[in-house]
Amino acid sequence: MKTVVVIGALGMMGQAALSGLTRHKVVTASRSGKGCDFQVDITNKDSLRKLFESVGEFDAVVNTVGHCEYAPFQEMTSDQWATTIQSKMLGQINVVHVGLEYIKDGGSFTLISGILNMKPVPQAIADATTSGAIDTFVKCVAHELPRGIRINVVNPTVLEEAMDVYGDMLRGFQPVPGALVGKAFERSVDGFVTGQVLFVDA
Amino acid sequence: MKTVVVIGALGMMGQAALSGLTRHKVVTASRSGKGCDFQVDITNKDSLRKLFESVGEFDAVVNTVGHCEYAPFQEMTSDQWATTIQSKMLGQINVVHVGLEYIKDGGSFTLISGILNMKPVPQAIADATTSGAIDTFVKCVAHELPRGIRINVVNPTVLEEAMDVYGDMLRGFQPVPGALVGKAFERSVDGFVTGQVLFVDA
Repeated sequence: MKTVVVIGALGMMGQAALSGLTRHKVVTASRSGKGCDFQVDITNKDSLRKLFESVGEFDAVVNTVGHCEYAPFQEMTSDQWATTIQSKMLGQINVVHVGLEYIKDGGSFTLISGILNMKPVPQAIADATTSGAIDTFVKCVAHELPRGIRINVVNPTVLEEAMDVYGDMLRGFQPVPGALVGKAFERSVDGFVTGQVLFVDA
Repeated sequence: MKTVVVIGALGMMGQAALSGLTRHKVVTASRSGKGCDFQVDITNKDSLRKLFESVGEFDAVVNTVGHCEYAPFQEMTSDQWATTIQSKMLGQINVVHVGLEYIKDGGSFTLISGILNMKPVPQAIADATTSGAIDTFVKCVAHELPRGIRINVVNPTVLEEAMDVYGDMLRGFQPVPGALVGKAFERSVDGFVTGQVLFVDA
């Protein structure tokens, strides 16, 4: 049994991750902190530092948070790009950068991207671009992690549970159950692979 | 003969691009403006707007500018990430976003990434991550461009001309002549492909 810190635990992707981590001791965190063990804002390194210090010893971090703005490219503002980059891209990089100071030897990080970098759709250029950035980051940074620490990213298609939110944007996408995406988080946390993009698509 | 705006024309990659564009009318720009037709800072949308308004009609934009900071991941500061993202990633996105308002029907954009997202090396995580972002951006945004406008990105290995600068970091990399990379820029500007990553590797 490992101690796994799950960031964004109350979101739909967080719930999907939790479904794959039932054998482990899970510590939950979210931006509001409501219904979770801790509060954290991944865009703020001090907030992450406070989280990891509060948790104490842990073996794995699973991040399911990454806010994206959606708009046609020509209408997307600099602020929308900045917001998306701060959360989905730099926020996740922060999780690893700060988490490395605290995670146990042989631990693992699991980040989140999303299938729209492989299957582009209207409105999603910032989501796609930052997913591409995170997939690349994970593949490359894996070689730099010390003490046997691993890193992977789950790149899922849309969840069945999220089709009421994203269905209109994602015509022709076959949703998958959150429990299937949970398996990818489980493979990352329990396995030995590193530097991998774990696609879950249908 | 097309009118091609080359940004970063005096740099080694700019010179490589120019070598492939000799049949065209080239308008040059750089950050300092020295030795070029115009001055431009791609991290500033107003500066880009001023450039494109000054140039008048043009068929293509070739950007060879993208500043990256280099450090081991654990030592890389938030400022280093921000600087790299502002230039190599958002700077290039700015070029397209602003350039679209001015470029002629059927025009093209050609951006620059770099092989380190495919062949990771120590110190280059910010370069690799933003190259992955730009490669993804180009593949996805191509579907959104109006008026028959195309976009590609040249993803080269190290230039022979740059081995004195990068050779130590890039042990085991076979450099290619700038003139070969110039061919990729030429294929992008003169061809009909769009949404492509034009790798030049040896």
